[in-house]
This record gives sequence, structure tokens and C-alpha cells, in this order.
Amino acid sequence: MSEHSGYSEQNEHSEHSEHSEHLSEPRRGQPIHAIIPAGGAGTRLWPLSRRQRPKFLLDLTGTGRSLLQGTVERLAPVAASTTVVTGVAHVAAVADQLPGIPRENLLAEPLPRDSMAAIGLAAAVIARRHGAQSVVGSFAADQTIAEEDAFVDAVRQAAALAEEGWVVTIGIEATGPSTAFGYIHCGDHIGAAGAPAGRRVLGFTEKPDLQTAQTYLDSGDYRWNAGMFVARAGVLLDHLARLRPQLAQGLAAIAEAWDTPQREEVMARVWPGLESIAIDHAIAEPVAAAGGVATIPVAMGWDDVGGFDALAGLIAAQQEGAAAGVRILQAQGSPVGLGPAGGAGGAIEAVDSPGALVATTTGRTVALVGVPDVVVVDTPDALLVTVPARAQGVKTVVDRLAAQGSDALL
Amino acid sequence: MSEHSGYSEQNEHSEHSEHSEHLSEPRRGQPIHAIIPAGGAGTRLWPLSRRQRPKFLLDLTGTGRSLLQGTVERLAPVAASTTVVTGVAHVAAVADQLPGIPRENLLAEPLPRDSMAAIGLAAAVIARRHGAQSVVGSFAADQTIAEEDAFVDAVRQAAALAEEGWVVTIGIEATGPSTAFGYIHCGDHIGAAGAPAGRRVLGFTEKPDLQTAQTYLDSGDYRWNAGMFVARAGVLLDHLARLRPQLAQGLAAIAEAWDTPQREEVMARVWPGLESIAIDHAIAEPVAAAGGVATIPVAMGWDDVGGFDALAGLIAAQQEGAAAGVRILQAQGSPVGLGPAGGAGGAIEAVDSPGALVATTTGRTVALVGVPDVVVVDTPDALLVTVPARAQGVKTVVDRLAAQGSDALL
Repeated sequence: MSEHSGYSEQNEHSEHSEHSEHLSEPRRGQPIHAIIPAGGAGTRLWPLSRRQRPKFLLDLTGTGRSLLQGTVERLAPVAASTTVVTGVAHVAAVADQLPGIPRENLLAEPLPRDSMAAIGLAAAVIARRHGAQSVVGSFAADQTIAEEDAFVDAVRQAAALAEEGWVVTIGIEATGPSTAFGYIHCGDHIGAAGAPAGRRVLGFTEKPDLQTAQTYLDSGDYRWNAGMFVARAGVLLDHLARLRPQLAQGLAAIAEAWDTPQREEVMARVWPGLESIAIDHAIAEPVAAAGGVATIPVAMGWDDVGGFDALAGLIAAQQEGAAAGVRILQAQGSPVGLGPAGGAGGAIEAVDSPGALVATTTGRTVALVGVPDVVVVDTPDALLVTVPARAQGVKTVVDRLAAQGSDALL
Repeated sequence: MSEHSGYSEQNEHSEHSEHSEHLSEPRRGQPIHAIIPAGGAGTRLWPLSRRQRPKFLLDLTGTGRSLLQGTVERLAPVAASTTVVTGVAHVAAVADQLPGIPRENLLAEPLPRDSMAAIGLAAAVIARRHGAQSVVGSFAADQTIAEEDAFVDAVRQAAALAEEGWVVTIGIEATGPSTAFGYIHCGDHIGAAGAPAGRRVLGFTEKPDLQTAQTYLDSGDYRWNAGMFVARAGVLLDHLARLRPQLAQGLAAIAEAWDTPQREEVMARVWPGLESIAIDHAIAEPVAAAGGVATIPVAMGWDDVGGFDALAGLIAAQQEGAAAGVRILQAQGSPVGLGPAGGAGGAIEAVDSPGALVATTTGRTVALVGVPDVVVVDTPDALLVTVPARAQGVKTVVDRLAAQGSDALL
């Protein structure tokens, strides 16, 4: 594919020659510099998730680690470095959960400016620190992946394509005709060394209606877009400079000051004026239209934990005991706030309630009688009772509380 | 009907002559001395009701008064005095809730000995204080009656028959083929002055199966037995002396000492050895078999609040607002522990959950999304989620907690 002027060109040839030494082994890309945008409260998981205790900070699946910690850990085999971009309100909590990440790799947004500014700033800082030829990859902080080996292999293939100048997205296997996600329309196989699964991206779609989603599923050529992008930092920044020059200039100014005493001053002055736009609209869609985006389709048990319906599917039911058949998340007093069943919480007693989900942080005894599949979320100041089929309606309650000014509950 | 020797005979003629003066007006019986056995934890209303906070002490219907207070108040128009028999653990709470009742009318059972001993002791004390010709009436402390005028009229009619020597039970209109109650089999109308509704009782039945209950309902001759008995104190005690002489002697000994300094000593010595038997078995059934029991059938919106299914039917749904369609009982910090919606509790937010019942004493926000008819009982140390159709299964949870030794929760 064609390259643009700027960050990329200066390193392209050295990259190619470097990697030609290793062609005799199954070739995958170099380690990446991982960028993790950690934002969003996770309104649909209220009252577990709150503005001050967002979804990515919670252990929602009983693994003993938060979604953020899980994201960092599953990237460890492929990450040369990890940079987290989060709101200023959450930097301290993120630092607590990720003691292994240098503080200078935690980028604090004074206010949200959507994913392009967050990822772009991280990419610009990484380009300055590690060179524009570095491969960066962006991965949301609040998703789960069951098959981590498949994920790691996909990222390695994506990195191999990224080294050749592609903007690469991971294409999530669609396990149903979901209307909750945008889709990636996959074209021909590329046949690149180190990326056997790689395919050209013909375009991205917005969230479809059910009938359209079913058509996508039937065609076999569509994947869910989880917003995982891998590219050389320079490629990404060159696209940005071409497509959103003002945003690119702003980010460059901040990145230039980042590792200097002027960081705070420049950030405070420049960041608020940056354009708020998603990376999908700023780069992925226009570059795909020009033939510059590839995808690595992969089946890896991905889930965005988009509500209590999804959450119920991610937690194994108790096999025996007083809560047999129930999925339990229980407080353990950890910073993460939740943990696997059998922790420090009170008893869960269930009678004829298979498939129910009980998430409790209060230590109270919770009893279910004849309520299969019910969802009970028990926190010190708010209690939610719903069912998976209506889990998306939780947002309605949060909107009402916000309208009433019940900020303490949000 | 025939009289037995003892308490009754000595006063029978004076009673009749006294009342013959008032024949020109609609003749009903004299005021009664009300006996209110207040016992039973109400296991099926856990976790609202507990061993230390039994059902009768709770305002379960949002009226601003407990079931016990309601029982006393609805008897006020017909009660010459009120005597409450309760466990020693609850005497203080009962006294708090009923400041208008003299302390000497609160009889404390050191341990439960079923309804015959409780009612028999009260009747014996009343007979000594007010004479054996006094009419006593026994009414459980944990029931609700919507139409209090109908109740009062029924008690007055019952008193009129009681004066003639009958043991009279109030026959509750059966509004469905319930298998949860025993039934009264009604015979011919008696046609007594002052008791136009009075009928002979052919017998009592145990709780029937559904088919039998339907047969009862179809016949029109069966009523629910709510354990409301009205009789002259002497008649009751004479029956007891004949049918359960040892129990009668024990109660007589305690009653003789009751208003003396020996009360405590005699109670402690005699009470534990008393026979534990229900008044139904001790007196009502054998006396009915001998033709001595009458009933006043009445429709009065009676309910024994036998579980959350019944409770849901007793509380009006919110007409508007964020919890429209939901039945709410909310903490108000009163001794009663619960009160009508709109009290001091947190917000209730409901989306598509008509008919749900929320009883909360925690002040937390409770949100329901898409769970019509669900029952949520939210207390500081225990949370219950169930549905009306399974409300009787709550006992299973309580039994489990008891088996685990979780006494603090019971």
C-alpha cells in the first residue's frame, strides 16, 4: 500500500530490512506499544459501576482482576510498553491497580475528547519516545477475551501487517446478529508473510438493524468492530495529519512538551480545544475507503460486558451448595470491589432460581426464591433487580437519577 | 343449648334479664373482653419479620399501625377490656405499641404453650376480674380486616349468641378454594335475637386439598376458620374443665394468683407443665361435635397476611411517579419499622415492573427494570427476591438459615 509523507517514511526501509532476517521462522510482527483508553462509566452496569468507580476498574467476572488489569495482562506477551489514557479522576485508581506501569505512561485527560485525541496523544508520545516506526495498538480497557492465545496471535499478525504500513483492526467473530456493534466488511485475503489471516477492509458499518445484521452474519464477510487498531505510530499520525490537521498539530504540541516540565501547562492549554472525534470516524473509515485498512479476523471469546445480560453469560454458575445454579460476584474488600463467590460476603441462599446473577458488595445475606435468571445487584446505597432481557433498560434508571440530580448515586 | 355446671350457671339468669330491657332496639350482645394472642414469628414474611420482630409488631400494610395495633383498634367499639397474651420476649414491645392497655392486661408466657393455654389463662383472669358471665372473644394479633364495621357487627352478633351459652366462631367468607386454612361447616340458621346471621356449626375441617376446597366453596356452607372464638368466660372454662381438666386446673391456679404477689412464682411453676394444644382441638371441635358451637358468617375483607403473596394484595400500587404500579412499604424509623410509601426511605425507581412489591427498611435507592410482580424485601442484613407464586417457599430459606445456626438473621 502507499505511504504518506512524514513520520513513516523515514523508517520504512530500515524496518523491512530488519525483519527480513527472521523469515525462516513463522513470521509475526514486532512487539507493540499498547495503548489502553480507559474511559466510560459503564452506565448499563449501574449500580456496580459508577462515575467514580467505572466499569474498567471492576472485577466483573470473578477472575480476581479488574477488566483493566485483565486487558494489560493479556497484552503482556506482545507489549513492549503499555500506556493508559484515562480521566484525571481515575489516574490514582489506575496507578493503584497497575503498579507495574511507569507513572509517565499514565496519560490523564483533563476532560474527555473521545478516542482519537486519547489514542493520538499516546501514539505521539510513543513516537517521540520509541520512534515513529514503532507499532502501536489500541485496546479498550473494559472488554473480556476468553481465548487469550488467539488474541495474542491476532495482535502479532496485526503487527506484521502494521509494519507494512497498514492500519489494522482486529475483526471479532460475530457470534450472533448483534445490533449493538458496528461491523467490519472484509475483502480479499492479503497473503502477507506473518499475517495469514489478514484481509483487506472494504468498509465499516454503523450498528445495523436486526435484519441487516443477519445478512452480515450470513455472508460470512463481516466481523464486529471492537475498536482494536494496530498501526505504526508514524502511519497513524501521518493519516491524522492529513485527515485532521488541527487535531494532529494540537497533539504534536502536547507530545513535544510531554516529557518536559511544560507538560501540565501545555496540556491544560491545548487539550480542551482539541476536536472530539472517534478514531473510527477520524481515521479508520476514510483510510478504509482509500484501501489502507486491513483486518485480522479472529474468534477469541470476546465480550464487551455491555450490560448485565452479557455479564450473566460470563460468570459460571455455582455447581453445588445453597446457591447452586446461581452466578455470584461478591465483595471481598479488595480495591477492585468485587471478586469470585465464596469471598468475604454474606450467604447466598437460592431456591429454584437457576441462572440468576447476584452481584453483592454489602456482605448481606441474599435469598432468592423461585426467580430463575433474575439479576440482583446489591450495593450499599442502591439495589437493582432486573432480568437479562431488560438489562439494557438499566440506563433508563441512571438517566432518571441524573435528571433528579442524584449525583451521589451515579 | 345445654349448659354445664360451674362458672356459667350462676350468672345465666341475671344476664338474660338484664338484656331483656333492650329488646326494642336491634339487639346485639354486650361488650366483650377481648383476648389477643400475639405469637408466631411469621416465618413466611422473613426477612421483614424476625424472631425478635415478629409479624404482629410490624406495619405490613402501610396503615401507620402494626397488625397488633390494628387488631386492638378495630375491637375498640366492642371491647370492654383488652388482654394481650404474648411471649416474655415481646412484652416490652407490645407495651410500647399499646400504651393505652394497662400493664396488668399484658400476660407474658415464659414459653409457648399453644392457643388453648394462652386464651384459657386470659379467660380465667377475666372471669375472676369481671365475672364468669363476661363474654370473652379471642382474635389473633396478625390479621387484617378491610371492613371493620362488618367485623364489629359480627362480633356483636357473636356476643349475643355467646350470652345464650354458645361457643361462637366468626366464619370468614371463603373468597377462593384456599388450601391454607381449615374450614367451618355451617348448618342451620339459629334465628336467635341479636344474631340474625348465626348458624349452627356442624364441624371443623383440617386444611383441605384443592379439590375438596373447591367442593366446600361450591356448597356455600363452608367458611374459613380464622380462630376467632367468642364465648362467655364461664362457658369456655367449663368446657375446658370437662374436656381438659388438668389444663383447666393449672390455668385456674395461675389465674387465682394472677392479681396477687404470687403471680410470678405460680406462673413459673405451673405454666411450663401445661398441655400444649390449640383451642380448636381442645374445645371447638369436641364442642361442635356435641352441637354447642355456632358461627357468624361474615364477609369483611379478612386476610391473615400469610406471605408476600398475600401482602402484595393488601398494598395499593403507586398511581404515578417513578414507581408507578409498584406496591411500596418503606422504613420511616418508627417503632413499627415500616410505613407507607413516601416516608424517609430512598427513591424507588421502576421501569416496566407493574405489580411489584418493594418493602425496604434500609433507605437505599431500589431500582426495578422489567420485573413485573417481583417481590423485593430489603433489610439491613438480609435481602429477599421472590415472586408471589413462590412466596410460601420463603420458609425454606428460613429453615436453611436455622439449620446453619444463622440465628442473627432469624
